[in-house]
Amino acid sequence: MIVRIITVRVKKGKEQAFETATIANHEGSVRESGVLRFDVLRDNDTSGVYYLYEAYQDEAATVAHKGTDHYHRWKAAVADMLDGERTSVACSVVAPAHPHSW
Amino acid sequence: MIVRIITVRVKKGKEQAFETATIANHEGSVRESGVLRFDVLRDNDTSGVYYLYEAYQDEAATVAHKGTDHYHRWKAAVADMLDGERTSVACSVVAPAHPHSW
Repeated sequence: MIVRIITVRVKKGKEQAFETATIANHEGSVRESGVLRFDVLRDNDTSGVYYLYEAYQDEAATVAHKGTDHYHRWKAAVADMLDGERTSVACSVVAPAHPHSW
Repeated sequence: MIVRIITVRVKKGKEQAFETATIANHEGSVRESGVLRFDVLRDNDTSGVYYLYEAYQDEAATVAHKGTDHYHRWKAAVADMLDGERTSVACSVVAPAHPHSW
């Protein structure tokens, strides 16, 4: 399993549009067979900061995700909403160890 | 719902002991009624960096967690393993919106 934690900064005034576009991406992503989680979170203390918590069953699933229509629609939709580049950390899983717990 | 993403830096050579102690904390935490997730992740690119991804049904559940034996055991066990203070961001949930999806 692979987890990516992505940090996104959204321009002031674009938060609602970003959330709408990202919920659509979430809904498509969780239907992919290799996607175990695709959580979208809003930082409570820093306005405009969001996190995507994406868990995949393997590396191939991360590649497949980037080939989907919902990913490409999201990327195009949010391009002008972002304040700087998004950052990403890639992680391996310590717990829960079993894919059925995801 | 509330999600906390906690970043922990572990001293060189203490990684395995940290993982063992944190898996025990994970196992206790996921049995708490107010804990929706308690994922433990190892950064793939920066040695010694770990993330705890803790989802709670509400603020009361975060307080209850800090009163459990497994939390106190973990805190005591890892105190000498940590390289600096752990950092935490508190988040609200954009998606999935329904608690049953957690």
